[in-house]
Parts: sequence; C-alpha cells; structure tokens
Amino acid sequence: MNVDQIDPLDHRDAGHGVDPLFPRRWSPRAMSGEEIREDQLMRLFEAARWAPSSYNNQPWRFLWGRRGTAEFAHLFDLLVDSNKAWADDAAALVAMVSRTTFEHNGKPSRTHAFDTGAAWMSLALQDTIDGLIVHAMQGFDYDRAEEALNVPEGYTVQAMAAIGRPGATAVLGEKMA
Amino acid sequence: MNVDQIDPLDHRDAGHGVDPLFPRRWSPRAMSGEEIREDQLMRLFEAARWAPSSYNNQPWRFLWGRRGTAEFAHLFDLLVDSNKAWADDAAALVAMVSRTTFEHNGKPSRTHAFDTGAAWMSLALQDTIDGLIVHAMQGFDYDRAEEALNVPEGYTVQAMAAIGRPGATAVLGEKMA
Repeated sequence: MNVDQIDPLDHRDAGHGVDPLFPRRWSPRAMSGEEIREDQLMRLFEAARWAPSSYNNQPWRFLWGRRGTAEFAHLFDLLVDSNKAWADDAAALVAMVSRTTFEHNGKPSRTHAFDTGAAWMSLALQDTIDGLIVHAMQGFDYDRAEEALNVPEGYTVQAMAAIGRPGATAVLGEKMA
Repeated sequence: MNVDQIDPLDHRDAGHGVDPLFPRRWSPRAMSGEEIREDQLMRLFEAARWAPSSYNNQPWRFLWGRRGTAEFAHLFDLLVDSNKAWADDAAALVAMVSRTTFEHNGKPSRTHAFDTGAAWMSLALQDTIDGLIVHAMQGFDYDRAEEALNVPEGYTVQAMAAIGRPGATAVLGEKMA
C-alpha cells in the first residue's frame, strides 16, 4: 500500500474548527527503517527550543542517537521488549530529560515536567509538519536510564521517543495503539 | 501604535528551517481587555485534546472562566499581585490540572505533568494560529488553588494561564518578560 495515503484525518473527527495540524499528528509505531538527516533532527529540537517555560528556564534536554550509531544502540537497550519490537525501525531515539531546578537561583521548579512536555509537543508538531512520525514512550526502565545515560543530580528523565519515517504497516500500528 | 504590526518574528531569529508557528508564539502580558467567544475557547481546548499521552490517558483538565464571570474572579483571586497587575485584561483564565493516575488501572502515572504540558502547548499554538495570545503562570498559590478549586484527590494543579487579545502595550510586555 502507499503509505502516503495514510492520513489520520480520514478517521479522526476533530471539532470546533481546530487547525488540522493537531488531529493530523498521531503516534504510529510502524516506521520504515529509513534514516533521517541530522539537520532534520535539529529542526525538531529547534521547534522545541521555542516552547514557553516558567522564568524561561527551558528545562528540557534531549539525548539522542541516530540509527546505526552507538548512541542509538545505547538508548534502544533501555526500552522494554514491546517497544524494541517496533522501535528498531526508528531513524532516531531520544531521551527527554528535565532540569528540576531553576538556573537563576537553584530552587526547585514546580513546572519542569510540564514545561518539558510543552517542548516535546512542539517537537512532535514540527515532526508532523515535516512528514515524519514520532512516538513517545514511557516503556523503559527510568532508574536504569538515568544511570546508563549519566543523567546528573538535579535532572530527571521524563520520557523517550522514537522518530522516523512512516512504515508500510502504519495502519497496523494505529490498530495496536 | 498598531498592535497588528507586532510580530515576534521581527526580533526572533529561528534556525534550522523551523516552521514560523513556533517562534511566532510568544507570551506577552499586555492584553486588550476584549472578550473572546466561548467557541473560540473551545477550539483551544479541542487542540489540547489531540495531544498524545501515555496510554492515551489524557490526564489534562482545564478549569476556566471567561471575563466578567464569577469563575474568572475566582481564578483571578488565586494569582500573585504581579500577575493580577496585567491579567485583569485577559479574556479568560484557565487552571490546568492533571490526573496523577491512569484511568484504566488506577496506578500512578509517571508522565501526567509532562503529558499535560503537551496539551498546554497545543492550546498555546492553536491560540497563536487564531491571533490570540496566552501567557502561562506559576505565580499563584498552588495549595490554595487546589483547595479553592475543589481539585479532588488524585489530581494536581500544574499551571494557570491567561488568554486574551493582544493589547496596545504588547511590546512593553515583551520587555518585561
């Protein structure tokens, strides 16, 4: 089948005149195994960079690895088996980490996770605009991830994500979801 | 001055070919005091509704009040004075609350704040698309908010936000930021 014909808007009924960007973003698991270029990844992180945050603290950090690299393998190893089953076709894996304190005074931030979620959403929407797909995951060992990724004191892992190109079984991925 | 001429892109230098939607979204405090219609608000919440979340738990809840209502006054009363100083020109106030557990099994969610931040970002971007402005705040008493808003056990307030139309001193608001 022609994956270009898969459009979430065919089976998502959005209301209130919302911009199609939002219902068009979905989280398929079926990725093609194709690579994406580093500059394509950087565009996603650039979108995330413009997200708002309390005191403009920008608490989000992205640890990423492109397919075929040691960094990718390192991130992949943290996933639970049910995520490994499909994420091996991702073009990149990302661990999303937040700084739990404010840079300007070192005090605890109430919104570091919330702010990092905002940055993640921007990344996901830029991804959609670019015709890529991204699927966030909490299916990994958080404690092991913080150790394996050398996440320093004062930072915590919020989620991981797989980024890639849509695969031919994207519809199946939707059914699994 | 003509507020329509204020464009964050005039003084924001975004890179990597990122979609202008992201740098165009900003957080001015200067709002016009004009109302917005309820269907305009619903469009923002609809955008938020399409955000991804772990197990599709959609943990976000929005408590909102439009200008001139008792609900608005109730939300406004929670703000610190420095936010009251400008938020009285907002068209709506919103408290963003997250459910801390999964609906399907009642277990704690690791990502409820992160997911709610994703929904918030979608709201903010739809707001930008619609020519409105929105400014999130953590400048309020969280404990008092949870009590005053009757936030039930298992839910927690993540942030508040003011939504409105751009005011004539929007440039000043940017300088304050």
